[in-house]
Amino acid sequence: MKKELIFGAAYYEEYLPYDRLEQDMQMMVEAGFNTIRIAESTWSVEEPRPGEYDFSHVDRMIEAAGRYGLNVIIGTPTYAVPYWLVQMDPDVMVTNADGQAKYGSRQKMNIVNPTYRKYAEGVIRALVSHTAPQPNVIGFQIDNETKHYGTAGESVQQLFRAWMKERFGTVERMNDALGLAYWSNSVASFEDLPDPTGTINGSYGCEFATFQRKLAADFLKWQADIVNEYKREDQFITQNFDYEWKSFGPKGQQDGYSWGVQPNICHYEASKAVTLMGTDIYCFDQDLLTGREIAFGGDMMRAMRDDNYLVLESQAQAFAEWLPYPGQLRLMAMSHLASGACGVMYWNWHSIHNAKESYWKGLLSHDFAPNPTYEEACVIGQEMKRLSPILSGMRKENKIALVVSTEAVNAMKWFPLHKDVSYNDVVHWIYDALYELNLECDVIFEQEKDWSQYQMLVFPNLYCVREDTAARVDAFVKAGGTVFSTFKSFFTDEHVKIYHDKQPHGLTQCFGMTYNQFTRPVHVTVDGVEASYWMELLNPEGAETVAHYKHKYWGKYAAVTRNTYGKGHAWYLGTMLPPEKCKEYLKRAAMDAGIAVPDVQFPVIVRHGLLSDGSRVHFVLNYSSDLREIVCEWKGTELLTGTTVEKGAKMEVPDWGVLMIKE
Amino acid sequence: MKKELIFGAAYYEEYLPYDRLEQDMQMMVEAGFNTIRIAESTWSVEEPRPGEYDFSHVDRMIEAAGRYGLNVIIGTPTYAVPYWLVQMDPDVMVTNADGQAKYGSRQKMNIVNPTYRKYAEGVIRALVSHTAPQPNVIGFQIDNETKHYGTAGESVQQLFRAWMKERFGTVERMNDALGLAYWSNSVASFEDLPDPTGTINGSYGCEFATFQRKLAADFLKWQADIVNEYKREDQFITQNFDYEWKSFGPKGQQDGYSWGVQPNICHYEASKAVTLMGTDIYCFDQDLLTGREIAFGGDMMRAMRDDNYLVLESQAQAFAEWLPYPGQLRLMAMSHLASGACGVMYWNWHSIHNAKESYWKGLLSHDFAPNPTYEEACVIGQEMKRLSPILSGMRKENKIALVVSTEAVNAMKWFPLHKDVSYNDVVHWIYDALYELNLECDVIFEQEKDWSQYQMLVFPNLYCVREDTAARVDAFVKAGGTVFSTFKSFFTDEHVKIYHDKQPHGLTQCFGMTYNQFTRPVHVTVDGVEASYWMELLNPEGAETVAHYKHKYWGKYAAVTRNTYGKGHAWYLGTMLPPEKCKEYLKRAAMDAGIAVPDVQFPVIVRHGLLSDGSRVHFVLNYSSDLREIVCEWKGTELLTGTTVEKGAKMEVPDWGVLMIKE
Amino acid sequence: MKKELIFGAAYYEEYLPYDRLEQDMQMMVEAGFNTIRIAESTWSVEEPRPGEYDFSHVDRMIEAAGRYGLNVIIGTPTYAVPYWLVQMDPDVMVTNADGQAKYGSRQKMNIVNPTYRKYAEGVIRALVSHTAPQPNVIGFQIDNETKHYGTAGESVQQLFRAWMKERFGTVERMNDALGLAYWSNSVASFEDLPDPTGTINGSYGCEFATFQRKLAADFLKWQADIVNEYKREDQFITQNFDYEWKSFGPKGQQDGYSWGVQPNICHYEASKAVTLMGTDIYCFDQDLLTGREIAFGGDMMRAMRDDNYLVLESQAQAFAEWLPYPGQLRLMAMSHLASGACGVMYWNWHSIHNAKESYWKGLLSHDFAPNPTYEEACVIGQEMKRLSPILSGMRKENKIALVVSTEAVNAMKWFPLHKDVSYNDVVHWIYDALYELNLECDVIFEQEKDWSQYQMLVFPNLYCVREDTAARVDAFVKAGGTVFSTFKSFFTDEHVKIYHDKQPHGLTQCFGMTYNQFTRPVHVTVDGVEASYWMELLNPEGAETVAHYKHKYWGKYAAVTRNTYGKGHAWYLGTMLPPEKCKEYLKRAAMDAGIAVPDVQFPVIVRHGLLSDGSRVHFVLNYSSDLREIVCEWKGTELLTGTTVEKGAKMEVPDWGVLMIKE
Repeated sequence: MKKELIFGAAYYEEYLPYDRLEQDMQMMVEAGFNTIRIAESTWSVEEPRPGEYDFSHVDRMIEAAGRYGLNVIIGTPTYAVPYWLVQMDPDVMVTNADGQAKYGSRQKMNIVNPTYRKYAEGVIRALVSHTAPQPNVIGFQIDNETKHYGTAGESVQQLFRAWMKERFGTVERMNDALGLAYWSNSVASFEDLPDPTGTINGSYGCEFATFQRKLAADFLKWQADIVNEYKREDQFITQNFDYEWKSFGPKGQQDGYSWGVQPNICHYEASKAVTLMGTDIYCFDQDLLTGREIAFGGDMMRAMRDDNYLVLESQAQAFAEWLPYPGQLRLMAMSHLASGACGVMYWNWHSIHNAKESYWKGLLSHDFAPNPTYEEACVIGQEMKRLSPILSGMRKENKIALVVSTEAVNAMKWFPLHKDVSYNDVVHWIYDALYELNLECDVIFEQEKDWSQYQMLVFPNLYCVREDTAARVDAFVKAGGTVFSTFKSFFTDEHVKIYHDKQPHGLTQCFGMTYNQFTRPVHVTVDGVEASYWMELLNPEGAETVAHYKHKYWGKYAAVTRNTYGKGHAWYLGTMLPPEKCKEYLKRAAMDAGIAVPDVQFPVIVRHGLLSDGSRVHFVLNYSSDLREIVCEWKGTELLTGTTVEKGAKMEVPDWGVLMIKE
Repeated sequence: MKKELIFGAAYYEEYLPYDRLEQDMQMMVEAGFNTIRIAESTWSVEEPRPGEYDFSHVDRMIEAAGRYGLNVIIGTPTYAVPYWLVQMDPDVMVTNADGQAKYGSRQKMNIVNPTYRKYAEGVIRALVSHTAPQPNVIGFQIDNETKHYGTAGESVQQLFRAWMKERFGTVERMNDALGLAYWSNSVASFEDLPDPTGTINGSYGCEFATFQRKLAADFLKWQADIVNEYKREDQFITQNFDYEWKSFGPKGQQDGYSWGVQPNICHYEASKAVTLMGTDIYCFDQDLLTGREIAFGGDMMRAMRDDNYLVLESQAQAFAEWLPYPGQLRLMAMSHLASGACGVMYWNWHSIHNAKESYWKGLLSHDFAPNPTYEEACVIGQEMKRLSPILSGMRKENKIALVVSTEAVNAMKWFPLHKDVSYNDVVHWIYDALYELNLECDVIFEQEKDWSQYQMLVFPNLYCVREDTAARVDAFVKAGGTVFSTFKSFFTDEHVKIYHDKQPHGLTQCFGMTYNQFTRPVHVTVDGVEASYWMELLNPEGAETVAHYKHKYWGKYAAVTRNTYGKGHAWYLGTMLPPEKCKEYLKRAAMDAGIAVPDVQFPVIVRHGLLSDGSRVHFVLNYSSDLREIVCEWKGTELLTGTTVEKGAKMEVPDWGVLMIKE
Repeated sequence: MKKELIFGAAYYEEYLPYDRLEQDMQMMVEAGFNTIRIAESTWSVEEPRPGEYDFSHVDRMIEAAGRYGLNVIIGTPTYAVPYWLVQMDPDVMVTNADGQAKYGSRQKMNIVNPTYRKYAEGVIRALVSHTAPQPNVIGFQIDNETKHYGTAGESVQQLFRAWMKERFGTVERMNDALGLAYWSNSVASFEDLPDPTGTINGSYGCEFATFQRKLAADFLKWQADIVNEYKREDQFITQNFDYEWKSFGPKGQQDGYSWGVQPNICHYEASKAVTLMGTDIYCFDQDLLTGREIAFGGDMMRAMRDDNYLVLESQAQAFAEWLPYPGQLRLMAMSHLASGACGVMYWNWHSIHNAKESYWKGLLSHDFAPNPTYEEACVIGQEMKRLSPILSGMRKENKIALVVSTEAVNAMKWFPLHKDVSYNDVVHWIYDALYELNLECDVIFEQEKDWSQYQMLVFPNLYCVREDTAARVDAFVKAGGTVFSTFKSFFTDEHVKIYHDKQPHGLTQCFGMTYNQFTRPVHVTVDGVEASYWMELLNPEGAETVAHYKHKYWGKYAAVTRNTYGKGHAWYLGTMLPPEKCKEYLKRAAMDAGIAVPDVQFPVIVRHGLLSDGSRVHFVLNYSSDLREIVCEWKGTELLTGTTVEKGAKMEVPDWGVLMIKE
């Protein structure tokens, strides 16, 4: 995609306490905006009564935007239902494991309910047909942060039973595959399958979750098909994919920050519905801003189709904890571009005066006056305008892939490593180590078959693997690749049934190692550092023992092994170690893979891109409150200042500052 | 009111394991009691079957009390329903946000249920008509610690929708005022309003809570109207008003202690039903006894109608944590009098041998034998008898008012400052500072229009204000008053909609300051001390910066400002600071207001009163385990010992001791 | 019982991912197994459709076991219901205080539901009649870890009301005994009794729990009666009695470890259904292995009928936390024998590949290969085979009894000492002190009438006592016995109604002490150590003050008293003190009782037995990671090595090692 970089915000004129459309547009233009996202979440305004559509706000916004030279992304409003829809059919409210949701919040509907589907279809058709002809409408967002919302009512369970029948064919095969005999859970027919929300069988529970995720992906596909009937060829379809949220702070006041693999929709499957990947990424700022969530989300979104993606929501002032220091809003925006984003949009333009997100603030505060955050957005806007011709369409060429799994994130909720450590914690433990080493990687899903571009594959806690994945890993190493796996990988099949042969399943030769006991490390050290949470007692069978456990009784077992297998190398980490130690092993594995490890490390982050003109660009991002000096490794131009830089020259990067060097 | 000081306890003969009425009365007389409170909570004994009244216990108690010279307060038993009432109509049990309550606990009924009202009316009429003629019945308590109990069943919601229609007139006005467009919550008619217990809109949620509080106040008014049909003119009507309870210790074993503004009934509205304010106040004792809850509750109860109030429940031995040290029971009693109480009654006479409050002990333990706590009550009783002619009818004349809000305590539950800090925590943070400085104040509600007697107004976290309140504050300062406000005040209107002009709403001139950004303080100091929980980035516009934030990026903003405006002064505190620092600023504000700050401070508390004979009395209360020496500021008589005291003389106050000096 | 010591495991062929029956049997034989436990929990395999029985797995296992010389215990499968039973009658799922359980987990059925009973009877009759004739079937386990599961549906409440009528006769007596007048809970007829799951009256709540426990005991009796119709005389009936579980680690992943008196079935009553006591005992291992749970459970199971008992489930590898160090599996097994067990069986043979207990591992890991834990089991198996003729039928002769109460464990949940301290914590505090002092005791229930064999009785937190118990204690001391009681003992009657005379009820003369006030200790010391959680302010009336409280105000009260009464002695501990101090007092009490306290203490545990040939055996168990040296107090033979030992000789006990010396 080679277009202008997108810069803008979500804008809800419907929520304004008074008419200030013109003022807002003027302020947006001053901020260098070229795009707004509108209409999603405002169904009750767009259709106040069943079938009575009122798009006057939408029209006003598109028209005004047109006058101010702004493009518009139209969001379908389907994730927040009006109350009349629930009055018409109470089953519109989702029934999940905890019972039926009450009306009030968004994203609490039953996405397979026919009444919901009928009226959703109605408003989508009306809205898209109404707006698609407008020249400044550049694309459509279908729904928002779509997930399955735990939908588990009787009608969903009927669909589930039919799906199970199709999936397993015979009830015996299902009983076996899911181990239902345990505690008398086996059944004599598919019709007899019990409510999965009561199950104590993780295989059965995860199977139902797989089905639920399928419903969510199908729902997006269904919306895309409708939009496709109306949209112009030049208009894109996108979705605002989110991540697992990690909570903090007062319960109910915010949802947390963007932490890892989303458990409640499979991004790999769902992405098929869209023509442009879109995402929202939220993270701590101030002293806790590290850029890792920005990089992680970007590396996943981009890698899913090896293309640019749009950041549909990036935080502005957000809630109390998140008010960016001077420079941080810009650093975040440039980091998105460094990951291959084709644009950055804020959530949202103005702070809302009522309801749940009153303190999840926008660029403007409740008083609509300019403020330091808005003023920094103005700087970014001008810079992006200037950089757009150069950076648009930038590509990445990573040699490392980190492999994640939607099945694993769900399975590990049933069988947590430890109460304080989730699957995504392990994923970030490894991802962050790579990130801080400035070893760029793609984040790819286990289903992805094509590993041909990679020299190194990293498997953090890849608990569930399909049979062929183990075989592909074996072949990858044999052929000269390097793999780096943590504990609790290659342990179960895709039905979360533990493999009954030697662990790691199908890879004991590849890793030159096996184990059949594991425990918690208590006062156990490895290579001088404390082991935490989990330890597998590794028995090398050909592999080199990189480090062993230091402990009176467990001392005879290996903790970290490295095997030379075929033309490649296979690393295995049997326990959780502090990040610095983990980095040591990752560096050595990278060397095995023939990948150079840069000298500069976090808090100075270096990211690389291949520009449309064939030249390379290097982003230097200072994630600290201190000025940093680096030695420039490239000869070229610093794009933000326009100055020429020489290889070997010392360069200063201000606190929370950015350099962008084009060779 | 100029009558004998009341001294006594709640007495439940119905709960006794054997007949010991005469013994109990004798022991009460020995303790100097003149009053007992009976009958509340014993409905199932008074009406064992529908319509079959049995007041034999009540009669026995009144008769015996008469013989022993004791007065009686009759409580209507309506807060603990008999099970036959629930069998008759299951909707008698309250349905709240969590569903319908099960039978068992008190205060779980639906106060608008017609069956409940019918039988409540029956028992009230029967009981009051039966007992009002008795000469030693001095008054009636209607219900007990009345609140709305979250009542939210379908019938309540019907009433709510009608009330909303009346309140807003048009649905458009309601949609706007409550910002219902957010997440598609707007409706096309009042009949379509959804169940507010599911809402994510704090404005809508708080509006419903306002309605629920109205139901509770109406319920008391309804009871008072019935009682008024029977009671003699000399008999009072009272209520046992409680406070927000702050929990501690094992869940379910106690409700906590009396912490702050009650969210679930509006005291300001509810007080209209009674002729004598009544209250219960519970607090930590032993090393944690500070007197602040006694002072806070008293300052609120007294200020509501500028009159004496009755402490209907004060703790005796209470539960395990609360066993008073020698002297503390007396110190608490005298502190109540120092705040303007016209009497002190214990909850309760004897410890109960079964059920929830078995360990919420009375003056007597389970063995009914004298014990040190009972023996101290005997001392208090004799002293009160002696002091009664002097202290009865004592008044207070405070120059400072601390302004609180029932709307704010509710709104801040939707938008908490921080998970560890509630509205009442901020209120107590400021109140306690005044208390420890011996700066006496009235605690008044935001609705109170008459500020004429005050020189200084204090606004802790007054989040919600009616439009005219800001104007009144402005005028108050202009005219020479001093105001002292904390962060998060004057932020929303009474519908919890954030004002969309500059903050603090309507008072930027008055405070000479504005702000539109705020965040959490992390390693931020102000004037040498740590800022906590919340910080507003204040931009002075005319005000003096009393202190600024010390921080690399926030250092340019003010933390505390002081403005001279008209003839007065306006202080604003943008963050939470340790109590000692807060006191420093309060002292300076008091000086601005022309109010002298005493030298003596907590743990020695000094409280003042104006006696009926026109003379002044000063209470010196030692809230510590150490003997304290003070310099007497008054010439007069120490009432407890009868000794003459001279101004400037050194006086000793024993540990947990009291002096009472009449000028 | 003088038979071969039992050694084996639970075996679930139904759960195997492939047929490996012969391999498993071979490996069992290599491990020295002589018994397997089968069939419990596999109802859906045994009866896949209503009335269609399929015992092919059971037959295969019995037949193969026979070929390999293994005995079989058949478990009735009734604790895990098939889903068809729930489809037939949804009330099969238990309704408890939280509502109706969903299908999925075991032990969630309504044990009084007629449909459940009908089909349970069917499968029991079919299974037992089918298997009883097999010569290698040695006994039957009825159900598993049976409890009442909180069953409280309407049909249960009907039974409860009838039972209450029978129990109390008149409604007045019930109202009085349970103090129902409190908060209007009294009723006019038994038919009007409200749902006890809503009650705030601990007496009423505990009465219902007593009824629920009776249902559970009756259920076992009912199963035993059915089994008795079919079983041979030489076949036993057993139950797998469990303890209160103390949780730790990630919620839902394990149930915890075996902590104390089981609240949800009365072992004293339930034991009447079986001919051989059976139990499961789980505990921490690695550095936290102490043997105290093994000893406690054994001391209770053995004492209930002064006979050997079978450990039906002992942990193998269990979950992540629990992987035994080398030697620990053997130490645990030998400790069971030292307590009088007639056998040790593991739960379970192989780790399960799906569902809730995937990480509650068996002797074999998921790969079925030999591993260090299995290999240690092989050693144990050979040793037990060798020791069997000597140790089988070993008896114990303890002079101390520790008295526990099922009523008290329930009552203390209503009235907890402190949020961090349960009844069982107090029980273990005292039990563990005795254990670590190597003072062996029986653990007996309060109902047990025969104390004739004991010289010393210990009462930790015996909150509820029947009237005659106090009298029996008095007589015991008068006659020369020694008692040692903690705080909160002898406080209520069996209806959890607090006694209204002087505390400790009926024993003020015996203890020479009384009290009527208590509180929390805050900075209070006793005899140089910190008092915790609870302190009673003891007033000696004849007793010696062993230690008083050190505190400004509580210093005048005694903390520990000792009374000489009749020919005996009575100790009373008014507060909780560190274990070492508690041991000091227990030692002195033991001396009063004429019981010698050994020099050797924990971590070296010494346990004694009386062999069938009349000689004595002494177990020396090293519960530490260090080698320990002891001085041998006996002349005889060390059974494991066969070496001769001399009195006074120094002997080494390896880390986690065992000596077994036969005199």
